[in-house]
Amino acid sequence: MPKLWNATIDAHRNAVREAVLDSTARLVADQGVASVTMSRIAEAAGIGRATLYKYFPDVESILRAWHERQVGAHLHQLAQVRSRYAEQPYQALSAVLDAYAHICRAQHGGGPMAASLHQGEHLAHAHAHLRELVAGLVGDAAAAGDVRGDVPAAELAAFCLNALQAAAGLASKAGVGRLVTVTLAGLRPPAA
Amino acid sequence: MPKLWNATIDAHRNAVREAVLDSTARLVADQGVASVTMSRIAEAAGIGRATLYKYFPDVESILRAWHERQVGAHLHQLAQVRSRYAEQPYQALSAVLDAYAHICRAQHGGGPMAASLHQGEHLAHAHAHLRELVAGLVGDAAAAGDVRGDVPAAELAAFCLNALQAAAGLASKAGVGRLVTVTLAGLRPPAA
Repeated sequence: MPKLWNATIDAHRNAVREAVLDSTARLVADQGVASVTMSRIAEAAGIGRATLYKYFPDVESILRAWHERQVGAHLHQLAQVRSRYAEQPYQALSAVLDAYAHICRAQHGGGPMAASLHQGEHLAHAHAHLRELVAGLVGDAAAAGDVRGDVPAAELAAFCLNALQAAAGLASKAGVGRLVTVTLAGLRPPAA
Repeated sequence: MPKLWNATIDAHRNAVREAVLDSTARLVADQGVASVTMSRIAEAAGIGRATLYKYFPDVESILRAWHERQVGAHLHQLAQVRSRYAEQPYQALSAVLDAYAHICRAQHGGGPMAASLHQGEHLAHAHAHLRELVAGLVGDAAAAGDVRGDVPAAELAAFCLNALQAAAGLASKAGVGRLVTVTLAGLRPPAA
């Protein structure tokens, strides 16, 4: 087959896949994960049930693919936030931590589905990537004297990412701002 | 039946129950959770399989009971640490956070069993209890001027408990000390 034809098929397959993930996310948000079935997903995505099974074997694999897409989008968002502050590592760090805290707050937070999704290998990779991104910024900010140098950057990055997960339990956006402030205060060089 | 007899039966039942939990913990530590069966637990505890089934319906319920006992012991330990520093809220807070970080580091950390145990309702209660204990100390230390007063005590408690969970990924005890230092630095009143 000519290349153009293959490209068209690929684009079509991607479009169907994205539509399935979007529809599934909407169904889960509207009705909860327990009521989501392959038939309902197919109907919501406007495709036949048999077609859906050509893309995904079961609901769980769709949820996993959706979660992977979410996590990838969040990493992309954080990398973009960082890129806005070239040569300003502390500002970049503050902005990335603030964005991450808001992502944590927006998480549905909990339930057996969340626990099962969070076991995924894709998430281990994403977390490693995130720790690397934050540790890099912490290291640069420490070199500039804006972050304490008495604790390894990787440990400070793990501290930040764990601390900001407290955002998941916060009722207000103002609380997220306070949490970021407190976390950043932990990073500051100790008074001489 | 006379009371003494009942008390003897209760004591015996408790002793068997404790022995089952101890044996299960040892089996899990030695061989991993996947290889633990009711027969092996009964053998290790020195009781018959039929007797074991009079106490617990399945392996999962034993693991849950064991986890509940662990969590209860940790809460008791933290309450004892606090009681060593009456009238010294900041010292009590530091000591409790340090003890909690060491508990977090000692956790096996992860796997499907951990995820399933962490869903339990008993853990939600224990966490609420822990947040209350730490929030109380934070509030007292803030009243004494040793902790920042610009963030609600409950939010600072959530910050601490989340941040210290980073201890689970730390290779060294020295790292735990650094993590506690950084977390406490976040709590300090901001420089005027």
